[in-house]
Formats: sequence, structure tokens, C-alpha cells
Amino acid sequence: MKQFNVGILGFGTVGTGVAKILLSQKELLRDRVGAELHLKRIADIDITTVRGIAVGEDVLTTDAASVIDDPDIDIIVEMIGGLTVAREFIIQAITNGKQVVTANKALLASHGNELLELAAAKGVDLAYEASVGGCMPIIKAIRESLVGNRIKAMTGILNGTCNYILSKISDDGSPFDATLAEAQARGYAEADPTLDVEGLDTAHKLAILTAIAYGMKINLNDIYTEGISKITPNDIEFASQFGYRIKLLAISKDLGDMVEARIHPTMIPFDNMLSNVNSTLNAIMVSADAVDQIMLYGHGAGMMPTASAVVGDLADIARNLMSGTTGRVPLLSYQTEKIRRIPILPIDEIHTHYYLRFSALDRPGVLSKISGVLGQHQISIKSAYQKGRKTNGTVPLVMLTHRAKEADVNKALQELDALDVVSGYPVKIRIEDERNQE
Amino acid sequence: MKQFNVGILGFGTVGTGVAKILLSQKELLRDRVGAELHLKRIADIDITTVRGIAVGEDVLTTDAASVIDDPDIDIIVEMIGGLTVAREFIIQAITNGKQVVTANKALLASHGNELLELAAAKGVDLAYEASVGGCMPIIKAIRESLVGNRIKAMTGILNGTCNYILSKISDDGSPFDATLAEAQARGYAEADPTLDVEGLDTAHKLAILTAIAYGMKINLNDIYTEGISKITPNDIEFASQFGYRIKLLAISKDLGDMVEARIHPTMIPFDNMLSNVNSTLNAIMVSADAVDQIMLYGHGAGMMPTASAVVGDLADIARNLMSGTTGRVPLLSYQTEKIRRIPILPIDEIHTHYYLRFSALDRPGVLSKISGVLGQHQISIKSAYQKGRKTNGTVPLVMLTHRAKEADVNKALQELDALDVVSGYPVKIRIEDERNQE
Repeated sequence: MKQFNVGILGFGTVGTGVAKILLSQKELLRDRVGAELHLKRIADIDITTVRGIAVGEDVLTTDAASVIDDPDIDIIVEMIGGLTVAREFIIQAITNGKQVVTANKALLASHGNELLELAAAKGVDLAYEASVGGCMPIIKAIRESLVGNRIKAMTGILNGTCNYILSKISDDGSPFDATLAEAQARGYAEADPTLDVEGLDTAHKLAILTAIAYGMKINLNDIYTEGISKITPNDIEFASQFGYRIKLLAISKDLGDMVEARIHPTMIPFDNMLSNVNSTLNAIMVSADAVDQIMLYGHGAGMMPTASAVVGDLADIARNLMSGTTGRVPLLSYQTEKIRRIPILPIDEIHTHYYLRFSALDRPGVLSKISGVLGQHQISIKSAYQKGRKTNGTVPLVMLTHRAKEADVNKALQELDALDVVSGYPVKIRIEDERNQE
Repeated sequence: MKQFNVGILGFGTVGTGVAKILLSQKELLRDRVGAELHLKRIADIDITTVRGIAVGEDVLTTDAASVIDDPDIDIIVEMIGGLTVAREFIIQAITNGKQVVTANKALLASHGNELLELAAAKGVDLAYEASVGGCMPIIKAIRESLVGNRIKAMTGILNGTCNYILSKISDDGSPFDATLAEAQARGYAEADPTLDVEGLDTAHKLAILTAIAYGMKINLNDIYTEGISKITPNDIEFASQFGYRIKLLAISKDLGDMVEARIHPTMIPFDNMLSNVNSTLNAIMVSADAVDQIMLYGHGAGMMPTASAVVGDLADIARNLMSGTTGRVPLLSYQTEKIRRIPILPIDEIHTHYYLRFSALDRPGVLSKISGVLGQHQISIKSAYQKGRKTNGTVPLVMLTHRAKEADVNKALQELDALDVVSGYPVKIRIEDERNQE
């Protein structure tokens, strides 16, 4: 039976998961792939920590170069993550003519164009299913299954930490800071949670998805990114009174010669399947012309779910190598010469519905003043709700708008902030509600 | 640019959808596949009906053999469906060395082993993504993405007609017959709805999925199949009082040396994602050791969603042909020599939870008599609920059981039916509730 040798760089959580599957499912993989995926080497700066998995002493090394340069190794699995050494290791592996599998969304979002071009030029595969959505085969679905569709839009819950925190605030009514601390204690949030809660991790994933869905180069920098740290139990409760839940959504839309790509807390109706995605789970809904809508749902992170996606990539590569081919599916979904630079619409230019919450001073004429200013900026109010309870001389006044332009909303809010009718800067949360196009 | 010629057999709904995508998305497919999928011929017994799509006169023919035997045609797309001529056409196409794509679940469920073996022997691909779940890439997910997982169970809503009817009864409270008539009027149910509402179409799909998930031969005959025609608004309402919705589920479980595979109306808890799948939509949840759970959701039927899956298969085949390979992924997911005959557990042997509804005569001691008989058959009651309203001297008495054996439940119900405490045969609906393992 044909054997392909695998070298793993990075023996952390996901690297350990990949090693576990390669060792414990050796026979299953043989029976299904028809070849052996042999775990030959694992490189990590720490090879003494016990990972609960038995690998031979000759497998472990602290010398990554000895793995990357090993002529017997066919496939390099980069599990280091981040923007430090992973990039140069991948470049060296590609240069050595090795196939590469990575789950490194940060690296692909920032340097993916360069790396994927290099891989294409060298005629090797660079597989990255595990970089987006953990175990969900969203990259494969877009690149292969939906090949006959024009993709129109994608909305995804792509960060388990944020989804856990928002679900928990929604269930318990505890504030963000306490919920984050609890998530950290449970291991659902990192000690430094910025990458997750500020939406950057989600942006990395959307940058990759947007590129492969619309045939454009990866463009992280122009994705508007707003995290969940300002979401209050109050806003979640108000949202629910209007039939909405708040989720950190990755949203992208094909506008023809431009695309939208943005990450922000978003209100979605209860009957949107994404609103039922709770705890650390992820999901992504793809709208496309032939299929209408299709959704994938599963664990977007974690040792074994992510390792499952890496092993799926390894099997794909083994199958390609057995038939003597690489680049069977174009790395960015479109033939290289067909990939365009499609600009991302600046956030100021988007049109959507808004939830606005004002701390209105409890005096006559306030509602009329607020709605007047909104009206002057072409923002019309769909419904308003004033909660009777007075706090520090103010009452919460909540408004849902019809479709409005982001720049207009921002101008109106700035103007209102300068007036003496509201206390504190108004809260603005965008709404995605397909039932309502006005 | 490399060109592959496609011949479609059957110019019905899905065949028309495939032709539409091949013609309207010619450029997109070129940009993504790097080859041209050229629609050369379409054969149908009726070539005069207008399908709202412009194909040249030289494309249409009533002579299927002229398409199957055309040496210029690389790929045959069988869109005739059913068990009549489709089988011999596919056999002839394979014999001629052509790649084949089909959406014919009935044929694969009944003759798939033979056809797939023939294809493997002849070294051609026989692709069938569209046979299960319409646009959802469930075949690809199991055969490729989950390759490193032991699949433990699958639960799916795989028939849009049944799901529409059950959703509608749940929303409106109208009885089954009226709802079926309405579904027929809307085009969601066939004039002869038997194949759908009696669960056979779902069984065809589960036969295929069970084979590829567990590495076994396709076995339709041993799948227990019970449809939805006996579901009443009453039972749906009672279910909802216990926190359950009723769905027609395809259920399969790996028991090691046997598998469970069954189709029946099933109560599932509100917090099961499948319980939110409404109207004609389908979904399938796969439980596997590495990913835990993963769900796909989308349109399981219809012209364009199904055609999308067919075109995905065409692209896969084109990519294989470009790299000079076929059989890249084993047709039944496992290498042919590794496929086993794994028996399906007879329905009498399954253990699950049950919802039982009795029309209890309104007299003292009835509850004790019923629970006594159940107890004699090792069936213990988790909760009981008696609705006060009396109809024809009986009151509905609803019980949920702990885990019990199907054969015991059937014996108890037969015994109770013979006694004078209940009127009419008791209603039995199985429950799948993972939160509750007792």
C-alpha cells in the first residue's frame, strides 16, 4: 500500500489532535483513502510536556528545519499558528516541493495571496479547510460543491468564544466582563481575549471566505471589524422584545463590482436558523443562486473538530498524490488568472436596518427632537419603544429604523449626542432581517 | 481549454435545472473548473414541451441510445429517475466507459451495489451527490471531509414533502388529509404521495447514507419504514407540551457489529437543531468521534438546488478527468474490499423512549391497569398526562416512557388493546432525546 509521510510543525492543541487521529485511526484511513498517512515527525520547541499520546522518541524533535527539509516527508502540517515563524516554515516547505496543510487563519488572512501564489507556482497544494469553521467543510463546500452557483451572500457565526459569551449573557443577564471572566475560567476564552472578542479572529475567517466565494484576492484590511465588548444584557433583552437575538456575525455580500464584508454584533430574527446557534457552536449560511440557502453547523474550534478538518485535507492531498496530480482544485477557488481585486464597500456606505438605544432625558419633547434629527438625515423610524423605568433621570428609548445609510446614522447620532436631550453616546446595533427590505 | 461533453438523459425538472446551469454559468464554470462542461445532447421521450430554456435543435433527441453511445460524450447525466429504464441506461453508459452522474436514490437504494461495483470494475466514476439531500453536500462531507472520523450516528430530515406537512399541521392544527391536499395544490406533494408520506423516499436516502457512513453494502430492505399519515394535530400538540416537535426522521446508529437504520415520525426536543427545520427544508446531523456533531441544512429537492449538486459532481469528474484519474474517492466511501455486510438491527430489538397515547375509558382504576400492564413488560413511565376533556366517554391519556425495548412496548400495547380500559389501538411515537439516556 502506498504510504505518504507526514510531518507536523507545532505540537499544541490541534497538532496533538491531528497526531491522535493519524495514530488511532490508521486502519480507518487506510480503508478509506487506500493509502497510509504515516506520522513521521513532529517538531515543537517543547517536546517534554505530556500530551496524552504515545509517539516514538524518534518522532519528536525541536528542530523544525529537520522536518521541513526531510526528503522523505511528503506533507507538512503547519499547526503553529500566528504570524511568527509559521510563514517562513510554510514558504520553505513549499519551496522544498512539499504539500502543505494549515489551519492558520491569521496567516492566510494577512499573507494568503503570497503563499497561495507561491504554492500554485511551485505546483504544490496548500490546503486550509481547518482555518475557517473548525470541522465544518465550508471551504470544500464553496470550492467544490457550490461550483455551479453564483454566491450572493454569506452570514456566519465563526467565533465560539463570542458566541458562548453572547449566549451566556442572553441566558443569565450577567454583564460582559463577568461573562468573559467565566468563559476564561471554563477555557472558552484566552487569557488575552482581544483577538476573539474584538472580532479579529472572525475577520480573518471572513477574509478567506470572501475571497473564495467571489473570486477575489484575500483582503483583510478593508473588512470593518467591531467586537462584542460593548454589548449589554439590556440590549439583548430589548432585542428579544423585538423578536431578535444578538450574534457576532461575519457578513459578506456580492454587490457586483464591489462586495460588503463586515464583522459586528448583529440582531437577527428568531426564525433565522443562525439565531438558534448557541454556546461555542458555529454556523455559516451561504446564499447562492441555485441552492437558495445552505447552512453548515458544528464546532468551529477545539482539538478534535479542527483536527478532523486537517485530516480531511491530508486525505485529499493523498488522493491527489496517488493520481499524480496537485492543484486539482484552484487554491482560491477560481483559476489564478481569473481572480480579481474586488473592492470592499466602506462601512459608511452600507445600507441596513438599525437598532438605536438612547438614554433619553425624562422631559417633554425629547422623542420629537430625536426623531426630528433622525428624519433630517433620511432615517425613518419603524418602531419606537420607551421603557418606563427611570435611571439617573433618563429612560431608555429604543428605536428600530427602516433601511438607512451608515454614514447618515453616524451623523445623526453625533448631532444628537451634542444636544441636551440624551445622556451618553447612543447605542447602535445593526440588524439583518431578510423579511424586511424597506 | 479542455472540453468535456455532457449528455443528459431525462429533460424533466432536475434535468432542465442542470441544462440551465451548464448554459447560464458556462463562464463561471470555466473560471472555476478550468475546463468547459459542454452540454452536447439531451434525450427525452418528450422533446416538444417548452422548458423555458433555449437549447439548439441538434441538442435534443428522443433516442437515448444515441446519447449513451455517442463516442464524443464523456459524461452521462441520468435524470430519468425511478426503476424503469434508468438502470439499463446507466449500465450501458458505464459499459461504454463513460463517467456517470445520477440523482436516482430509488435506483441506488435498490441496485446501487451492482451499479457501483460495475463502475469500479470498469474504472469510471458514478457520482450521486444529488441523490441525498438535494443541494446539501452530505455525500462529499461523509466520503471526504469526515474521512478521519468514526461515524456514530446520523439523524436527518430528508423529505421536504413530509416536513412541509408536519410543519403545517403544527402551525395550523389542520388534520393530515387536508394538509396533504394543500401540499399537493402548492406542488409540494405529488399526485400519488405514497413514496414521500409513507417514508420510502427517506428510506432510499438513508440506505445510501448508512452504506457510506459505516462501510457497508447498501441495504434498503432491512430499513424499518413508517410514514407520517397517522400523525394527528393532537399528538403534535401533546408533544409540544412535553417540549418536543414531531419530525419524520431518518435515524441510523453504529452499534459495532450491527447498525440501526429506521424511518419513522419522531419526537425531538426543541433545543435539537433539527426541530427548527421547517417547511420543505431538509437537514442532516452527523455524530462522529472527532467532530462531535455536524449539521448540514438546505433544500433537499427542487429544480435548481438538486441541479447544483449534479453540477458539483460534474465539476469533480471534470477535475478527475483533467488529472487523468477516476475512482479518486471510493464510490461507497471505503475501498471495495473493505465493504462489509453489516446487519441492520430488527426494529423489534431497538431500545428507545416512547410517547404513548391511550383513549382511556373514563372510569376508576384505568391508569393503574395501564401502568400495571406496561410494568409487566419492563416499561417504566417517566411522566403521564391526562387531558380533562372527555370525547365519546374517553379521555386522552399520554405517557412518556423511560428507555424500553420496541418488542416489549408492542406486546404491552397489544395486551392493553385486548382489555376493556382503552378504546382503539394506542398511539405510539418514538422519541429521540439525547439529554435523557435512561
